[in-house]
Amino acid sequence: QTGETHKFVYNRYMPLIFIGGMPRSGTTLLRVLLDAHPDIRCGEETRVIPRLLGFRQSWLKAPFESRRLSEAGITAEVLDQAVGAFILEIIAKHGTPAPRLCNKDPFTLRSAVYLRYLFPNSKFIFMIRDGRAVVHSIISRKVTISGFDLKDFRQCLKKWNAAMSAMVCIVMYVISYLIHGLTLCMCEQHYQCQQLGTGVCLPVHYEQLVLQPKVWLEKILSFLSVPWNESVLNSIISRKIIIPEYDLKDFRMCEQHSQCQQLGTGVCLPVHYEQLVLQPKVWLEKILSFLSVPWNESVLHHEELVNKKNGISLSKYLLERSTDQVIKPINIEALLERSTDQVIKPINIEALSKWVGQMPDDVVKDMSEIAPMLAMLGYDPNANPPNYGTADALVQENMKHLEKYKEDWYAKQKEM
Amino acid sequence: QTGETHKFVYNRYMPLIFIGGMPRSGTTLLRVLLDAHPDIRCGEETRVIPRLLGFRQSWLKAPFESRRLSEAGITAEVLDQAVGAFILEIIAKHGTPAPRLCNKDPFTLRSAVYLRYLFPNSKFIFMIRDGRAVVHSIISRKVTISGFDLKDFRQCLKKWNAAMSAMVCIVMYVISYLIHGLTLCMCEQHYQCQQLGTGVCLPVHYEQLVLQPKVWLEKILSFLSVPWNESVLNSIISRKIIIPEYDLKDFRMCEQHSQCQQLGTGVCLPVHYEQLVLQPKVWLEKILSFLSVPWNESVLHHEELVNKKNGISLSKYLLERSTDQVIKPINIEALLERSTDQVIKPINIEALSKWVGQMPDDVVKDMSEIAPMLAMLGYDPNANPPNYGTADALVQENMKHLEKYKEDWYAKQKEM
Repeated sequence: QTGETHKFVYNRYMPLIFIGGMPRSGTTLLRVLLDAHPDIRCGEETRVIPRLLGFRQSWLKAPFESRRLSEAGITAEVLDQAVGAFILEIIAKHGTPAPRLCNKDPFTLRSAVYLRYLFPNSKFIFMIRDGRAVVHSIISRKVTISGFDLKDFRQCLKKWNAAMSAMVCIVMYVISYLIHGLTLCMCEQHYQCQQLGTGVCLPVHYEQLVLQPKVWLEKILSFLSVPWNESVLNSIISRKIIIPEYDLKDFRMCEQHSQCQQLGTGVCLPVHYEQLVLQPKVWLEKILSFLSVPWNESVLHHEELVNKKNGISLSKYLLERSTDQVIKPINIEALLERSTDQVIKPINIEALSKWVGQMPDDVVKDMSEIAPMLAMLGYDPNANPPNYGTADALVQENMKHLEKYKEDWYAKQKEM
Repeated sequence: QTGETHKFVYNRYMPLIFIGGMPRSGTTLLRVLLDAHPDIRCGEETRVIPRLLGFRQSWLKAPFESRRLSEAGITAEVLDQAVGAFILEIIAKHGTPAPRLCNKDPFTLRSAVYLRYLFPNSKFIFMIRDGRAVVHSIISRKVTISGFDLKDFRQCLKKWNAAMSAMVCIVMYVISYLIHGLTLCMCEQHYQCQQLGTGVCLPVHYEQLVLQPKVWLEKILSFLSVPWNESVLNSIISRKIIIPEYDLKDFRMCEQHSQCQQLGTGVCLPVHYEQLVLQPKVWLEKILSFLSVPWNESVLHHEELVNKKNGISLSKYLLERSTDQVIKPINIEALLERSTDQVIKPINIEALSKWVGQMPDDVVKDMSEIAPMLAMLGYDPNANPPNYGTADALVQENMKHLEKYKEDWYAKQKEM
């Protein structure tokens, strides 16, 4: 496809890029911005990669099934080879080759630690967005995500909160980090912990630990058959976690608090959607340097490369007609990736606060209980909207352009 | 594992062996016989290969989903690369290396044509057994297979019949073979045919075609926009299909009638369980020559190699105890491959007619309607049991040996 014949070698040690986060959090925007870079190729959501990751997890999660597999020689290592080979083929072959290959399937980030193990030189970008904006977008654009009731803001906000906390599982890192590097994760692993039995896995409630540290640290150390040492107690109290715009008086956040953060800032970069669209140049410079990719202005003007040769491939809908038979018109929205009609536009902040005033008053009132993850991610649940920051010159320019050529852009969206 | 360091290269063009058929039809017996051969390694059922094949089929079967995948660049070809890579890693790595690698997962044969496409030099062995014996074995050994009600012989016989006909789908080959090589398959593809619409896919009922060939052939040829030609009519009538022990007066079997047979006898060899255990030497010579593997006496004495180094690996159950905690006793049967305790014995015919006298009289009476596939596969539904043939000298010897050392073998089975 590049005209000349280039040989692209691909293997599991190449520096792959994974973009993830909740759907409707800007994952498509970021992937098209990176797709605009000559060295990077992401392409559309593969859909099959998160599914295979899910199948693997279900096989290994059930103690019985994983025992049967290992009896048959299908150890975790053998399964890793097969899963790694499958994922690499899909990433390498579902689009044009490029020096830096990238994958964007929102929910892959739930397996970030595992993907890092399969692809030891990969890097991850975790897109984070105000949950109220995410839920408003899901409901207003009728995006079907299993478990989300599109008629109920409160229910969707709770589901968003649960999904984010699964990606941001509270890791009881402080003890394990100090003593063993053993991670006691209290999210999905709770089921596994039960299966292993109290002799092997000790559930520890975060709130108890931070409210009664001495009592629980003594229980934990004896469970680990490790002699008591004051250092563990001092370490919890001395560290203060600062979350911008939100003062966590009564809770002490333990240091590491996400699959993304388990990997560390050298491997996984959290990016807030609001910052990306307000200050694209600042954040794209951060992102490209994090990915060790040279700066290129094209990332600021992706709209000029959409659906162009060697440009950005967006899932598009062509109504195919057989010679004499009109194929039943298929529900168009479901065929496209849902952000296609938005990302054809230059970077803009149209969607930033669309959610304000769209939610029932009782939901707005109870926001901090319904979605505690908002505060944890730095969004004030009681500000409608919070102050996301100021747009840079480029974005202000784009907004004027979009206002001026509103009809043209509307026609272009329809055409997609 | 072989002590010295050998380099084994594996790729999708190696002559892989696939053993398949209904569970309880002798697939495990055949794989341990072949495992006894120094050049061949099958190993236990992988469980994950048929699952991945099922996932792929479900992705591509739904027109909507396959359209979304191809929009994302995940064409059938890209998916083939990924599925092929996954399967190859599992087969190559879940056991010791060997010049001829083999896979035994009963239901893979439902995708034989696809597997042949992925592995162009592979060969297939389709194990066939009297459905009454299969069902009796499933019920008496409480083998859980989805959809089989272990309290109901009639229901299980119908399920067996449906499963076998899925593997042996009636292929309207006669027209397509003569004209286009186009296969009109009336089994699972019926759903796909409906989706494509009558302009593209014409359902043809076998019974109508053989009862009213001229009427239907005219309809079919005009649907294919092919001018009428008497040759199609002559060809149907002139060929006679002979099925041993069963006289098909009113039906004319079309020539090709199975996934296995679509591949042709050079690629897929049907083997009847009863013949394999009655005449093992005759049939193992046929099988090894079909696989182009040199003859080796070890295949006739597999019992001497079970669980030995470089011998035959059987899924076994070791009760693991943690230091002070007895892990809840797990349901042992479910952990082993269900034929393990049978295949440790030398080749024998103990299980051949165990089913006789075990089924309700009404089921025995209605057998030919409940399970028409019995006749199609050469088993007389009204003979209880049919004459399966005579045992060769080796098997007669083995039966005497098993009778003489009954207690020892019983103890060995218990030990497994």
